Amino acid sequence: MFVYERPVRFEEVDAADIVFYSRFLTYCHEALEALFASLPGGYPRLVLERRIGIPAVHVEIDYKSPLRFGDVARIEVTVEKLGRSSCTFRHEFSRKGDGTQVASIKHVCAVSDLSVLRAIPIPDDVRALLSQHLR
Amino acid sequence: MFVYERPVRFEEVDAADIVFYSRFLTYCHEALEALFASLPGGYPRLVLERRIGIPAVHVEIDYKSPLRFGDVARIEVTVEKLGRSSCTFRHEFSRKGDGTQVASIKHVCAVSDLSVLRAIPIPDDVRALLSQHLR
Amino acid sequence: MFVYERPVRFEEVDAADIVFYSRFLTYCHEALEALFASLPGGYPRLVLERRIGIPAVHVEIDYKSPLRFGDVARIEVTVEKLGRSSCTFRHEFSRKGDGTQVASIKHVCAVSDLSVLRAIPIPDDVRALLSQHLR
Amino acid sequence: MFVYERPVRFEEVDAADIVFYSRFLTYCHEALEALFASLPGGYPRLVLERRIGIPAVHVEIDYKSPLRFGDVARIEVTVEKLGRSSCTFRHEFSRKGDGTQVASIKHVCAVSDLSVLRAIPIPDDVRALLSQHLR
Repeated sequence: MFVYERPVRFEEVDAADIVFYSRFLTYCHEALEALFASLPGGYPRLVLERRIGIPAVHVEIDYKSPLRFGDVARIEVTVEKLGRSSCTFRHEFSRKGDGTQVASIKHVCAVSDLSVLRAIPIPDDVRALLSQHLR
Repeated sequence: MFVYERPVRFEEVDAADIVFYSRFLTYCHEALEALFASLPGGYPRLVLERRIGIPAVHVEIDYKSPLRFGDVARIEVTVEKLGRSSCTFRHEFSRKGDGTQVASIKHVCAVSDLSVLRAIPIPDDVRALLSQHLR
Repeated sequence: MFVYERPVRFEEVDAADIVFYSRFLTYCHEALEALFASLPGGYPRLVLERRIGIPAVHVEIDYKSPLRFGDVARIEVTVEKLGRSSCTFRHEFSRKGDGTQVASIKHVCAVSDLSVLRAIPIPDDVRALLSQHLR
Repeated sequence: MFVYERPVRFEEVDAADIVFYSRFLTYCHEALEALFASLPGGYPRLVLERRIGIPAVHVEIDYKSPLRFGDVARIEVTVEKLGRSSCTFRHEFSRKGDGTQVASIKHVCAVSDLSVLRAIPIPDDVRALLSQHLR
């Protein structure tokens, strides 16, 4: 399991004063960029030099409780399934202060050659990294 | 069915040169704000004066083909289900030029009193509007 | 003068319930993308095929009155100065309903070859377009 | 001087593959939220409970060199001037790896009562905090 925490920022709430529903996926991606930081050069080198990325193919979000400005989001990332070229992440969101469950996100990615946007077998180093977070 | 079209903008792509995966939900919300514009005062009056909103409770996204800068997104919104206080939207995304299917999004909302974030029976005028787009 | 109008959207306000101060520049760019739409292929073809862009080199913003959800921003774009490779835009923001002045933005760009990010002489078709909006 | 560092994220670049020009102001605000974190309850308590904020009244940005995905932005924040109710910040942006100057931003705020958006005398605790970063 990989844990990523970050405060909700001033401009991330909407006119209903809660974190806008699309931002949950932005937070997930932030968490994944932090997870990939342990590869040499991190996610940027993977994307820019090796031209490998993880475009989403399917996402499911259950919103349970809102996040507000002043909250700190805690995201627990696990890998639910690791296929030949696909990877299913689970992101469990909670509010850091009191542990309230905020959202649960299933996030299926296709490890891909970004120059043609086609799925490729997961490279060994990426597989090794993701395996560390297998549920 | 309600149709909303808008060009992908310069800053909406990511380092893989495709529209970032969270933005699809931003586009959906834009489409809904346009849909609600036919109520007097539109979505702003609903939210700010009547304190009624439609927070998401569940979302499913199937990403089929990327959107790029230069594409125009076409979003066809229908109401799949209309309950006492919940509404299920379907957003079918395509690329305007060639009709390529881009994404399909199921979007379940709870019509809510925003001051306490609790579901309420859908008001008559909102139900009438949503009913026009029932599949 | 080129006029661009667009409603403030639900997620564009911040925790102080006003449009977040960085978004004014996003609105300016939207306005410019609309202005460039009269070139064949619009701003996307300029950027993606000809690899020409207009990165900002200097910006000055005077914030006069806030924008809120429910407001429609009206942006009047003029070209204040047109050099060999630089262009100075002025964006006057007002609230559409009552004409209240919202912000005034000076926006200096260097017309550039994006592959090396170096200033180039403004191409004739771009100069012709910009000249139409010279103050 | 207050220093804030953060990596450029995947979705923060534009179709020219550089950090979009409006995001620099978002980064500045992030830096200020981090600066204010040393007040009890941080910036959220200031905004939500005391209803005090720092809306921008004037901003000047000099863009010197682009930021790209993979870069880490280093922001050095100083207070250039502290008036009765106004505060002028200077944000010096550089690329962390090699120290390249990226941007210099002058950012004038009016410490304000957010419920009426009117300038107020800077409260003592806020003044004490800002004074620590006076140039």
